[in-house]
Amino acid sequence: MSITFLTDFGLEDDFVGTCHGVMKRIAPEVEIIDITHGIQAQGILQGSLVLANTLPYLPEGVHLAVVDPGVGSERREIAIRGADKRLYVGPDNGLLVPAAEKLGGIEAAHEITNRKYALEPVSATFHGRDIFSPAAAHLAKGLDLAELGPAVEPHSLRRLEVPKADISERRIRACCLYVDRFGNMQLNLTRADVERLGAVPGTQVELELNSERYYAVAARTFADARDGEIILYEDAYENIAIAISGGSAAQTFSAQPGVDVRITLAP
Amino acid sequence: MSITFLTDFGLEDDFVGTCHGVMKRIAPEVEIIDITHGIQAQGILQGSLVLANTLPYLPEGVHLAVVDPGVGSERREIAIRGADKRLYVGPDNGLLVPAAEKLGGIEAAHEITNRKYALEPVSATFHGRDIFSPAAAHLAKGLDLAELGPAVEPHSLRRLEVPKADISERRIRACCLYVDRFGNMQLNLTRADVERLGAVPGTQVELELNSERYYAVAARTFADARDGEIILYEDAYENIAIAISGGSAAQTFSAQPGVDVRITLAP
Amino acid sequence: MSITFLTDFGLEDDFVGTCHGVMKRIAPEVEIIDITHGIQAQGILQGSLVLANTLPYLPEGVHLAVVDPGVGSERREIAIRGADKRLYVGPDNGLLVPAAEKLGGIEAAHEITNRKYALEPVSATFHGRDIFSPAAAHLAKGLDLAELGPAVEPHSLRRLEVPKADISERRIRACCLYVDRFGNMQLNLTRADVERLGAVPGTQVELELNSERYYAVAARTFADARDGEIILYEDAYENIAIAISGGSAAQTFSAQPGVDVRITLAP
Repeated sequence: MSITFLTDFGLEDDFVGTCHGVMKRIAPEVEIIDITHGIQAQGILQGSLVLANTLPYLPEGVHLAVVDPGVGSERREIAIRGADKRLYVGPDNGLLVPAAEKLGGIEAAHEITNRKYALEPVSATFHGRDIFSPAAAHLAKGLDLAELGPAVEPHSLRRLEVPKADISERRIRACCLYVDRFGNMQLNLTRADVERLGAVPGTQVELELNSERYYAVAARTFADARDGEIILYEDAYENIAIAISGGSAAQTFSAQPGVDVRITLAP
Repeated sequence: MSITFLTDFGLEDDFVGTCHGVMKRIAPEVEIIDITHGIQAQGILQGSLVLANTLPYLPEGVHLAVVDPGVGSERREIAIRGADKRLYVGPDNGLLVPAAEKLGGIEAAHEITNRKYALEPVSATFHGRDIFSPAAAHLAKGLDLAELGPAVEPHSLRRLEVPKADISERRIRACCLYVDRFGNMQLNLTRADVERLGAVPGTQVELELNSERYYAVAARTFADARDGEIILYEDAYENIAIAISGGSAAQTFSAQPGVDVRITLAP
Repeated sequence: MSITFLTDFGLEDDFVGTCHGVMKRIAPEVEIIDITHGIQAQGILQGSLVLANTLPYLPEGVHLAVVDPGVGSERREIAIRGADKRLYVGPDNGLLVPAAEKLGGIEAAHEITNRKYALEPVSATFHGRDIFSPAAAHLAKGLDLAELGPAVEPHSLRRLEVPKADISERRIRACCLYVDRFGNMQLNLTRADVERLGAVPGTQVELELNSERYYAVAARTFADARDGEIILYEDAYENIAIAISGGSAAQTFSAQPGVDVRITLAP
């Protein structure tokens, strides 16, 4: 059984490597697959979306995720059993729930309280190392979920609010959920949403962003547009995104996650 | 058989991790060795040079490389069999050919068209995940190259033009191919080129860069120069590079890949 | 036996991947655990501190570390045998010694001179690839340390000077050793040092930094403070650090490693 690993730790520091070490000391045979450690620092919402997007492409196993600005506070440490033998480990701050619910639902959840499966002493600021990595490694070795601590009601788990777009037949008001390294801006929209507006590949649309207006074209892929053209396309996780063919949309628009985007059909 | 993996995906996003997941679902026993995912976004030429430089140091196996600004366009997806049992998978945009030709030549090439070995549905923008990673994983498990699709003529594969330096006995006009994290600037020159100018370790040369002139010394290594001195040296891949001992050449010169560099012997 | 790997190579370039390849060609069965490759370029002191902090959390094995501004100079290449079967490989510039001494001391040290265990030709600038990675891989396969070259006296190994804080009962003058991706600033202080000043969780202190004064509170973790509050806390490696709850201390203070920090009790 493998462990997938997603955090906002970045790779400049030792945090990720140290967690790998902790897991390997406990479970030397287990394989660890890094999904990403580039979640925006303290970006719980982004982390939860990326986890839910990517897990269908990863082997079933233990899914360890740590984006944890509340480390050391009252927020619980939890482990979840979902469908397909998948297990989830991380803070109870909304990070794990969207993935588990997307992949068949939550069968059981336990608070991680048993210090037999933690590194002692537990530090106040690095539960990724001291609580979550050891728990994930023990689960990957076959430990029963219930050994980690008492069961909690699945409905008591914290959930995040995903910003909802405001969609009518004449106008969409959406927001940027995150920006990737190519400067593509993922929006909180699906293809059905933009089709409701009447936009299909080839349609011209008008974007309003940071109080400026731009023409864009609905397209299937970057290669359908001329260099420098702004496109609205369905990305590989079936979200609508904004890109600039041969360029960076986020840089051109100085856009950050959270920015408002209004879309109308071009007149 | 291992898979080596090189892209321009960066590590901030999930692209690399997701491809690892796809390969591990198909071929759980296969080892994936990441060469780098820091190729400049859409830098096909840089990617092809780094692949050719590094593969001699990596285990023979499947060599997956994805730098693919033309994803979704007419450019073909290809798999190549070279010498030494090496197999190459990636877009037909020039990325793979220099490595394959350096390492013994191309024995066969096939277009990847068989959707039996792809993830369905194939997205328009992430063939790394949906076509190339599955193909690489199946090849690593022993799939015959011909199963992926029809043979194509090796001479029909796209080739890139590597910028050539203009070299005489009095002056070299070269360009910077890429810049590493230490700020060292790799040029399109070999030791033979600078020796033709008469520069051997210890010789003073004059560099012209962004319309400014600098004195530099031909050196064997950074430690042969005083701190802050500009050196011209043969790097570990046998290319000539510019460095500043104890500093960053690229930062000092505000130099980027593509910048012109003129070299003459110091008067 | 696994190999842990720490460098200042970064992940933008191929340096790390190429070293992985070299090790895997020699020792295909060996597992490589990357601690970090984000040590500040040429930051020997930071590298040595991170290595000593993290190794207790990593499996015993071969510990390869390369931060090597003096590559190609007279500095020796060394391999060390410590307690617990741990082996250390890297440049003799102070990088390895603090970890080895923290983890039970140095039993033996050998200069790496035997070119039978190096890649030939050895480049002038990339001993990580040509000398250190091969040596580490051969050791992981069971090679005796003495095969690499002649024994050297442990006390002849280079040691670094760690900047010492100036601590009295009324005032501390410390410095920032490094900054992590969250902007937390690690100081050259332990809990005992700040307790000597009288600061325990809840105590208000005054910081002087870049000629500005700030109020901060000694805290156990980020969650003990209000958003935006400056805290002084014991980090997960038992060093005292400065953070801003919900923000980045380093960014707010424009602070870099090496910056002076003065701490007094708030009046």
